[in-house]
Amino acid sequence: MQPPLFIRLVAFLLLLLATASFAQPPRGPLVVSPQVNADKTVTFRYLAPLAKEVLLNGGQFGSSAVPMTKDEQGIWSVTVGPVKPDIYPYSFGVDGVTVMDPANVAFFPNERFKASLVDIPGDTPLVHALKDVPHGTVSYEYYPSVSGTTGSVVIYTPPGYTKNTAQKYPVFYLISGTTDTEETYFKVGKTNFILDNLIAEGKARPMIIVMPYGNIAARVAEQTGKPKPADPVVRDDAEAVSRAKAFETDLLTNIIPYVEKNYRTINNRDNRAIGGFSRGGGQTLRAAFGNMDKFAWVCSYSSYLSPQEMDRNFPQIGANPENTNKQFKLLWVSVGSEDFLYKGTLEFMDYLKAKKVNFKSLITDGGHTWMNVKTYLAETAPLLFK
Amino acid sequence: MQPPLFIRLVAFLLLLLATASFAQPPRGPLVVSPQVNADKTVTFRYLAPLAKEVLLNGGQFGSSAVPMTKDEQGIWSVTVGPVKPDIYPYSFGVDGVTVMDPANVAFFPNERFKASLVDIPGDTPLVHALKDVPHGTVSYEYYPSVSGTTGSVVIYTPPGYTKNTAQKYPVFYLISGTTDTEETYFKVGKTNFILDNLIAEGKARPMIIVMPYGNIAARVAEQTGKPKPADPVVRDDAEAVSRAKAFETDLLTNIIPYVEKNYRTINNRDNRAIGGFSRGGGQTLRAAFGNMDKFAWVCSYSSYLSPQEMDRNFPQIGANPENTNKQFKLLWVSVGSEDFLYKGTLEFMDYLKAKKVNFKSLITDGGHTWMNVKTYLAETAPLLFK
Repeated sequence: MQPPLFIRLVAFLLLLLATASFAQPPRGPLVVSPQVNADKTVTFRYLAPLAKEVLLNGGQFGSSAVPMTKDEQGIWSVTVGPVKPDIYPYSFGVDGVTVMDPANVAFFPNERFKASLVDIPGDTPLVHALKDVPHGTVSYEYYPSVSGTTGSVVIYTPPGYTKNTAQKYPVFYLISGTTDTEETYFKVGKTNFILDNLIAEGKARPMIIVMPYGNIAARVAEQTGKPKPADPVVRDDAEAVSRAKAFETDLLTNIIPYVEKNYRTINNRDNRAIGGFSRGGGQTLRAAFGNMDKFAWVCSYSSYLSPQEMDRNFPQIGANPENTNKQFKLLWVSVGSEDFLYKGTLEFMDYLKAKKVNFKSLITDGGHTWMNVKTYLAETAPLLFK
Repeated sequence: MQPPLFIRLVAFLLLLLATASFAQPPRGPLVVSPQVNADKTVTFRYLAPLAKEVLLNGGQFGSSAVPMTKDEQGIWSVTVGPVKPDIYPYSFGVDGVTVMDPANVAFFPNERFKASLVDIPGDTPLVHALKDVPHGTVSYEYYPSVSGTTGSVVIYTPPGYTKNTAQKYPVFYLISGTTDTEETYFKVGKTNFILDNLIAEGKARPMIIVMPYGNIAARVAEQTGKPKPADPVVRDDAEAVSRAKAFETDLLTNIIPYVEKNYRTINNRDNRAIGGFSRGGGQTLRAAFGNMDKFAWVCSYSSYLSPQEMDRNFPQIGANPENTNKQFKLLWVSVGSEDFLYKGTLEFMDYLKAKKVNFKSLITDGGHTWMNVKTYLAETAPLLFK
């Protein structure tokens, strides 16, 4: 085959065009970033010849705001670490403006902030590593949701799901945190690879995992042509109650029926688990405590309910611990020791202990991060449906 | 239910935490952006109290670099339009730095630039509008690819696919452009909603659409621990040939067999279509002309092969037009009149005409954009497999 000169021209012109129309970088030399080095250091690069200051914001794997230095081409760079193997969010601070890494396609889906992701592999593969094992599928489904809207939900089916057409599966409903989207457990949490690996090792049962979107108000506003709520933070009681109810209503009356109609599920409480991170953990505990006929397996990651709310809204949990312990085959509570919810989570555990409600707990290092979410998912998935 | 005060605190602290660790906005007031107004104007907002200049880069729906103005809270804003209904990429230029809109989750998956997306609905729904019709599913699959790597491919299955378990479907392989990823046809091209709508109206046959990733070299480098190629633009002949061959090899020896093994497909050339945009259009024409036993339906969107390359590599296409016209049930060539590939595409059409090779063509307004890709997809999908 002769040299296809035209494709080089096309590609080059395409880049120029993209650059000209709405993207600034790349102009000039293209950069490689991030570059994970063999010694677990990571080199970050960003092209900005005119910038006065570029900082690396990678607070979850090191100190925030690491100054970068500029070379003669205008490429700013810094090498940090060695970094403990894991997936971390990062961004650049360019003259005070936070930007994603334009050279990196891996991003953190979120309603508010924009961050890129860097994955530092372990010497032995981490729980989420892409390995040569049978892989499940991650599907985006569109279902009839509240107020005439169409909801989007991300669903993991395990390896063999399409082949074993006679087999039915248990289902784990997994809810992400405030400002996360229905994509965050997939793109940041690597739910699919974690389960692929656990299933390949015989540690977890093949299961379906359903990852809904928790911010119903935003979707309703978007699809009904109203301005989106500016702020995912609830500001008054009515709003808080309506948001919590909106999600639970969507889960119970739309998502679960849709999943059970369209997937090969085992439809009873013993084969239904619910779990969540942060706001999703609160939604999990409320949905489980308020609907004990629906879920037998409950996982709270970096979240809790206060003793006051427990007594007020879910008194039966502590008042009749024999029944609670009989109903819940797993009640899991985990948190990082540097999490700003650490103290509240300990109080929740103390409440459960005082009421003689059984639960399993795990206290890890670290804070309110998706590194910890992956750990909690990898620890709890093997416990489910057994 | 009493006010869950804690959830408000959690959410607020979460935002602070996210802000502190790696994201700058939001600090201070949260903003709504983009806001599509009833009169088809669009208001964009960006919080940057310390910035000296913020520009809106929305070159594909208006003039580039529209100055924004700052209010007393430090929120920069501008209202533009009315804008012709469609989906457009945009970004902000903040003191010379290009950033995505942190308030907007809709983004343009790309290896190089980072852009947000704004969707201005039409008074009558556009081809890609989310409508109350049966929806198909978009799945991310992981398959054994070249050089021991695991490939990622995005697959649309039509409404009813999971129910009609006895039905088999034709398959359309659809390849995106330079620096696009396997997600671009889904996230920007809205392939799923376009097909959902066409199928609901009885205009297109239910089909499976397979959207692969075209930059094999980048994936191999990433998964084998080598630095990613900095530049998607090919620089020498050996690289150009090896990249083109790498994709075609992956398509023919890995992707098609994987799809035909794991999906209910009709496995013959009459039920296999191939199409692509820009670089993907070039890959389409080469794969189709070089493998006439594989594909009967061929769609080139904003791309072409030069007469020189046709004569050199695919002389049989023009030398035996009777056979070419018999083999290809559709050869489609489309381009925008402002596309920088317009002239080359006309030359390609002239070549086909001179050789008496049948083809259908469509010349639209506009340039080398994903707005045009959606139009071409909506025009060609109804022609396939009929």
